[in-house]
Amino acid sequence: MTVSYDGTCYAGWQIQPRHTTVQQKLQEAIQQTLREASIVHGSGRTDRGVHARRQVAHFDLSEPREPRRIFRSLNAVLPSDIRVMSVRKTGSDFHARRHAREKEYRYFIWNDATVPPFLRLYRTHVREPLDVDAMRKAARLLKGRHDFAAFTANAKNEVESTVRSLRELAVRQRGAEIVIVARSEGFLYKMVRSLAGFLIRVGSGEAPSDQAETILKSRQRTARVPTAPPEGLFLWQVTY
Amino acid sequence: MTVSYDGTCYAGWQIQPRHTTVQQKLQEAIQQTLREASIVHGSGRTDRGVHARRQVAHFDLSEPREPRRIFRSLNAVLPSDIRVMSVRKTGSDFHARRHAREKEYRYFIWNDATVPPFLRLYRTHVREPLDVDAMRKAARLLKGRHDFAAFTANAKNEVESTVRSLRELAVRQRGAEIVIVARSEGFLYKMVRSLAGFLIRVGSGEAPSDQAETILKSRQRTARVPTAPPEGLFLWQVTY
Repeated sequence: MTVSYDGTCYAGWQIQPRHTTVQQKLQEAIQQTLREASIVHGSGRTDRGVHARRQVAHFDLSEPREPRRIFRSLNAVLPSDIRVMSVRKTGSDFHARRHAREKEYRYFIWNDATVPPFLRLYRTHVREPLDVDAMRKAARLLKGRHDFAAFTANAKNEVESTVRSLRELAVRQRGAEIVIVARSEGFLYKMVRSLAGFLIRVGSGEAPSDQAETILKSRQRTARVPTAPPEGLFLWQVTY
Repeated sequence: MTVSYDGTCYAGWQIQPRHTTVQQKLQEAIQQTLREASIVHGSGRTDRGVHARRQVAHFDLSEPREPRRIFRSLNAVLPSDIRVMSVRKTGSDFHARRHAREKEYRYFIWNDATVPPFLRLYRTHVREPLDVDAMRKAARLLKGRHDFAAFTANAKNEVESTVRSLRELAVRQRGAEIVIVARSEGFLYKMVRSLAGFLIRVGSGEAPSDQAETILKSRQRTARVPTAPPEGLFLWQVTY
């Protein structure tokens, strides 16, 4: 199924004790309407406060059900800030996380004196005018296959590689809205918000564009790469 | 000043006891930041739950202040669902309500199985496919100068005229979104939501398009004209 959610009120995707999460709400809805205790596997986690335009998730059922019925039942009991947008039957070997070939995230900045009230939950507010050309220059240096150790919030893990292919890192502008589009076969923990945090620093003149190279080479996460706030981030789409 | 607000959490524009309203929040913000007890006069009221993209309002101050400063101070203390979008000095005779020449409202319908979570507070959900051509036919009959007594929720008032010039009543469609655009020099109480309620009935096949004429002529408000819910309605702009 594809799931769209407003992350404002959730402690992220993944189930955890004492917090409300999107995965939990979906599993409860399946339990309540289909009378099955099923685990919902997402294409990946999203953090507290992060939104999803199109998350993809799969779950198994013990008996065949009409996808159209599942769609209706789940939406009938889910809160309105989580919506199942489509449901379809897949082969029994399909896995939403393992089979994902590419993910696209978009980070939305509102670059003006004040954010319109209807966008307040879905944009990161940056008051000072950003230099979009400088951001684009830095983005060009970050695009491609690199070791992104300096752009993840994970504690250093010697086993797993921090090399990733950033297939797209584009900075688009339309009026007060600046959108950072990032595509990769896989992202590190908090990588998109780290890229956004650095690009905002570049746009505001706090860092030169070519610092991107220095930071990549350092492979060290420092204060030069802040984590941008979650409300501007959307998991945009997942390709299989 | 122009003010944009998300009406979800407010009992409408106008101050009233025991309820939070937009006018109240603005007056409190002026009191708090400019240290003046000033009345904020809007171009008109909006009802509980109705939004405004651009409400216009004026207020008097005892001494001159820099508009840019007022803009900043008010937004610094207002909740994020009410934003002052612009402030400027006017002649002392300017009156936001009396001098308004035309108002535009837009009523947003989401016509699909489910509403994306990010629009849930700003769209009226209509599940059954609407016949937009039928709605347009009815809209053409309603447009123009008529007695709209059957399209207001007001108790009959023998003194005030219920004749209004509806300069525009258009039905636009883009994907799942249907927008009713209404422009007039002035609207009656709950007139736009009554027009929307009737047009939705026409679109869903419950009423023929030409019932618009019968209802207009009757000058009687009946169940044939339901009041559409507030969350789809936006005060779009006011012209002076």
